[in-house]
Amino acid sequence: MESEDIKAWKVPEPTLRRLPWYLAFVKLLQGKGETFVSSTQIAKEINVDPSQVAKDLSFVNIAGRTRVGYEIAALVDALESFLGFTSQHKAFLFGTGSLGASLLHDTGLTQYGLRIVAGFDVRKELAGTRINGIPVFHMDDFPAKQKEYGATIGIITVPVEKAQEVTERIIAGGIKALWNFTPFRIRVPEDIVVQNTSIYAHLAVMFNRLNSMNH
Amino acid sequence: MESEDIKAWKVPEPTLRRLPWYLAFVKLLQGKGETFVSSTQIAKEINVDPSQVAKDLSFVNIAGRTRVGYEIAALVDALESFLGFTSQHKAFLFGTGSLGASLLHDTGLTQYGLRIVAGFDVRKELAGTRINGIPVFHMDDFPAKQKEYGATIGIITVPVEKAQEVTERIIAGGIKALWNFTPFRIRVPEDIVVQNTSIYAHLAVMFNRLNSMNH
Repeated sequence: MESEDIKAWKVPEPTLRRLPWYLAFVKLLQGKGETFVSSTQIAKEINVDPSQVAKDLSFVNIAGRTRVGYEIAALVDALESFLGFTSQHKAFLFGTGSLGASLLHDTGLTQYGLRIVAGFDVRKELAGTRINGIPVFHMDDFPAKQKEYGATIGIITVPVEKAQEVTERIIAGGIKALWNFTPFRIRVPEDIVVQNTSIYAHLAVMFNRLNSMNH
Repeated sequence: MESEDIKAWKVPEPTLRRLPWYLAFVKLLQGKGETFVSSTQIAKEINVDPSQVAKDLSFVNIAGRTRVGYEIAALVDALESFLGFTSQHKAFLFGTGSLGASLLHDTGLTQYGLRIVAGFDVRKELAGTRINGIPVFHMDDFPAKQKEYGATIGIITVPVEKAQEVTERIIAGGIKALWNFTPFRIRVPEDIVVQNTSIYAHLAVMFNRLNSMNH
């Protein structure tokens, strides 16, 4: 369904979504003082087929050893680096309303390689303010600020009716990847990356399952 | 991969994830003063097959009319109600760290039917404070507060190494559905609903696509 699905990516999206689970579990073992982990152990913990774990890890540049498995410290480093969590990706956030301001407060993003360097909003009274230390500018200043900061990622948290318009403006300004939090299916040129994270859609699934349980 | 996938649900998860996109688009048309919409129009906008749109909408209690399609106001009401966005689901949030506190700031959740009534944390100095008007209690007070509020949903934003432990405590206390924001694959009994929203996993996909584009 995602626009990126039609392209032939080297690493499949399901693999990229599972690897952070393995990372979380392996870091947990590391915290407990463990030094080696097998793909069978990961498979059992995550509830994924062992052959799937081995296949997923084959994309990462790390080799396991017969019987002992993977060295944990090396696996953590390899996974974090492979997933891009150790690089710093500069991002602009568009729409500092409720959800946008929330994300500016989430310092966890920095630990996962995303550095939000500025927020933008159309409300004039917000220009010049800071949210969690991050400067907020007027939307009209985006082209100038883009020259200054050179962000590659745009986080879209504008109201749904503005999603497509903002998308087009920021792509024109040089943004290469969009993290779309609106429930709107934005349209982009082929060379632009889109990741949709509609947390409200997840709510719909949860409510439906909860209701089905009760009946 | 999700634990719920093994059960035979009446409405498929992909349908439940697409319906909010249709809703967003149809509300947009409503805002522009339109009164009717066809499934072909929705399909074209969302980039989904028209037969898929018709199939998805067949789960919702609404009938389209030949030639004119669906009446927009009725479709909006039917979708919002079907998706559970018009009900108020009481939720507790566990772990008022960076991401947890962010979610307490997101008033958008209320509009989608989720009312976070309290937050819990193990840090004693936070007990008795409020975040965005929402009271924060010590984790040890959860059983008493659960008797008082009767929340059905638990939002898990604790550190990853505490995810399973907190999961077990809150299920024992009567929570029926878990919205898990940690990258940990929590294990739950069969009658408990889990929705995993690992926003950092989405980052991994975006970074990888962005790198592939550059090479």
